[in-house]
Amino acid sequence: MKGNLTFDFSNMCAQAVGAHAIDESRFERGQALVGEVHKAMCEKRGAMAWRNLPYNQEEVVEKIERAGKEIRKKFENFVVLGIGGSALGSKALFSACCHPFYNELPAARRGGPRFYVLDNVDPDLLSGLFDVIDVEKTAFHVITKSGNTVETMTQFMLISRMLSDRLGEKFKENLYITTDKATGILKKIVDANGWEHFIVPDGVGGRFSVLCPVGLLSAAVLGLDVRALLAGAAAMDEVCCRPGLEENPAYLYALLYTQAMEMGANISVVMPYANALAPTAEWYCQLWAESLGKRTDNAGNVVHAGQTPVRALGVTDQHSQIQLYNEGPFDKIITFIEVGQFKNQLGIPSAPFDVYDSSYLAGQSFNKLIASEAAATVRAVSDAGKMNNRITIDELNEYSFGKLLFFFEMATAAAGEFLKINAFDQPGVEAGKIATYALMGRAGYEEEARRLSTAKPAREGFVFTV
Amino acid sequence: MKGNLTFDFSNMCAQAVGAHAIDESRFERGQALVGEVHKAMCEKRGAMAWRNLPYNQEEVVEKIERAGKEIRKKFENFVVLGIGGSALGSKALFSACCHPFYNELPAARRGGPRFYVLDNVDPDLLSGLFDVIDVEKTAFHVITKSGNTVETMTQFMLISRMLSDRLGEKFKENLYITTDKATGILKKIVDANGWEHFIVPDGVGGRFSVLCPVGLLSAAVLGLDVRALLAGAAAMDEVCCRPGLEENPAYLYALLYTQAMEMGANISVVMPYANALAPTAEWYCQLWAESLGKRTDNAGNVVHAGQTPVRALGVTDQHSQIQLYNEGPFDKIITFIEVGQFKNQLGIPSAPFDVYDSSYLAGQSFNKLIASEAAATVRAVSDAGKMNNRITIDELNEYSFGKLLFFFEMATAAAGEFLKINAFDQPGVEAGKIATYALMGRAGYEEEARRLSTAKPAREGFVFTV
Repeated sequence: MKGNLTFDFSNMCAQAVGAHAIDESRFERGQALVGEVHKAMCEKRGAMAWRNLPYNQEEVVEKIERAGKEIRKKFENFVVLGIGGSALGSKALFSACCHPFYNELPAARRGGPRFYVLDNVDPDLLSGLFDVIDVEKTAFHVITKSGNTVETMTQFMLISRMLSDRLGEKFKENLYITTDKATGILKKIVDANGWEHFIVPDGVGGRFSVLCPVGLLSAAVLGLDVRALLAGAAAMDEVCCRPGLEENPAYLYALLYTQAMEMGANISVVMPYANALAPTAEWYCQLWAESLGKRTDNAGNVVHAGQTPVRALGVTDQHSQIQLYNEGPFDKIITFIEVGQFKNQLGIPSAPFDVYDSSYLAGQSFNKLIASEAAATVRAVSDAGKMNNRITIDELNEYSFGKLLFFFEMATAAAGEFLKINAFDQPGVEAGKIATYALMGRAGYEEEARRLSTAKPAREGFVFTV
Repeated sequence: MKGNLTFDFSNMCAQAVGAHAIDESRFERGQALVGEVHKAMCEKRGAMAWRNLPYNQEEVVEKIERAGKEIRKKFENFVVLGIGGSALGSKALFSACCHPFYNELPAARRGGPRFYVLDNVDPDLLSGLFDVIDVEKTAFHVITKSGNTVETMTQFMLISRMLSDRLGEKFKENLYITTDKATGILKKIVDANGWEHFIVPDGVGGRFSVLCPVGLLSAAVLGLDVRALLAGAAAMDEVCCRPGLEENPAYLYALLYTQAMEMGANISVVMPYANALAPTAEWYCQLWAESLGKRTDNAGNVVHAGQTPVRALGVTDQHSQIQLYNEGPFDKIITFIEVGQFKNQLGIPSAPFDVYDSSYLAGQSFNKLIASEAAATVRAVSDAGKMNNRITIDELNEYSFGKLLFFFEMATAAAGEFLKINAFDQPGVEAGKIATYALMGRAGYEEEARRLSTAKPAREGFVFTV
């Protein structure tokens, strides 16, 4: 099976792009940390349970494949109820491996249910969905690791009520549930009712959960090769455990990015040249933002670490963002992701009329055009002195995609070690959750509600309606 | 008609969020420039032809409404062939004003054709579209202002060939064309063949073109109220021409943002709390990035100006980006966009089983939940000392949406004046275009092709395949 990834970090170097890039002395500063990073990555492996997912899920995969087959046979629609790490992996998988207009294909061509990820509580989004799906013919995958996520729990309450109003006692047959093995409200519910469910293993945080049931059930429902996905991840794990920097893309990426951050590059753009990978860039955005965006380092020093991830899309955003990337500040690194071989080969025919100066394009192909535009853009941003790197996937399939996901997970974990921060918690989201509880009138949050009701004073003249 | 926007800039101020925000002395520095900015905005009005679009299109609108009606009657699908400024406005309009699963609704419920914007040359995207549309029953709107855009011209060649193979001479009946009134290949083609077409007026650049036929034909095809859209823009124009800072949200936004840029805030996040507005944030990203991302100022000084725009989505990205926004660097400003009244009111029912600590949510609504989460997030990022501002749209409709678009256009133009740069050109995209021509073998670009073939030297050990 094809499925290789080629990494090219040349354009991160001052030799290639000039003064605003990593020079030898900077590289050596990073290099001096690699031994320590490698040691930590090895020693903490036990605490990074997501690194075992490629290896320890034989039984889980069988159960998921059975559930996937059942859902493909029984249901017209499959809806993921989850948000953040419970949603982004499924969206990335769906887009990377399925038809770009999957839900609009005839059922026979799809071979499985239509697919939706409901990762918001927007009333128009939710109401709109019920205009296009029949809930009785829909399987819902309810995912919350903590079991307490307010967005997912309210969706779950709504869907369960709708199902039980229509189906009575049988409503549980449309529900698939994934949560923690011990704690949380959702766990209490499945236990109290004796419902079968899937587990998010201990030590697998939301943003590292795509390769456990959180994402794998979606893959199975979509008819994807779950085992190839895990095999790709395992292959990349093997590579990313190597101690040597120049044979380990995760360490090299992490080193170069953290050095660039020290130089002031506070923005990381991921720009795939394939529509199929646009949601993968969004998945990366959560991984990179939540893992590295931290107020304090491991020693408790206030550092306000973090690099803001940005999703772009080639060639589309050449006509939106490249002006800024080329001419604007030296504040970003771009990861270009290219696909060597698309599923379709599509020629550019001659038009049935004279197209004048465009006639040289006739007889060529869209495949060559998108590859040329990627190469042209890489060259242009490099000539403009902007750091960038390229990942080329020879063929996008479950195996290569598993590699890509696992690469980014390993690179993120390694970056956390370079920065000496905890890449696996998210203390900064608590304040917003507590404020939401208070505003929704949850018992025990009365004091926060009082605090919130004392609005900060608006500056004179800074609020107006037009 | 409802359709008011409330701007709240309080949380841009040091009084509200602390040391990393705009204090009085900074505000005064910006304030000192307002007179000059206002003068320039008035004097250059003639050069900003997009500012006249709310007023000077009576005939165009009639023609567009006729075309829209014809397309709604005759075709099953409507496809925009365009990229960047020729695509993003249509996508924003479609999402803001139409059903969230529009293309999956039954035809009778839609009342018009399914709607697609093909803003890439990805071979899998293009091939995939032909699996779900019958080109004979599809109207294509070909848009390129320059008339030379390689992505759009190749799509146009492909579609024309497919149509003429099936329909013979009649193929033109499925084509609607918008281009410059005088120059470019597309103009030559329509002239040579005597085809009717729409014009992008002089002085209306791609990213400012949503309110001319580029975006308005989409609106008409979708059955939207084109006149209300323009009326909203006109109303906002009136507001944004006011000389006084504290009655003009465009000037105030521009002042605060450019001062924040001087303080090192090089990232501008737009975070609507409504799925319908996610593509509007992408439209903003082009507007802000291409307009302000400039190597030199008006005096020719090398400044590398620009602020990187980022699209986020509430509440979804609370579970992806807020950890970073709260705890990470003080390098960004967030614009929250809220919707007062959604189209649907959706209650949170009780579940048909005990939900334990989630039971306080039953009997409330998703409308209250999304509003509470927005308020909670605004408070949390403010408490974390991060600059932010809020735009609240009482009701999202064509009129209020026209206001919102025009506000951002005026704010961008004003920011260009504060920065003393040309907000209306995009010289930084030429290098990539030329490299693409060379790689695609266009005559006259042989020297560039030779230059590109001498690849930069890869650093030892920085390229590998796994």
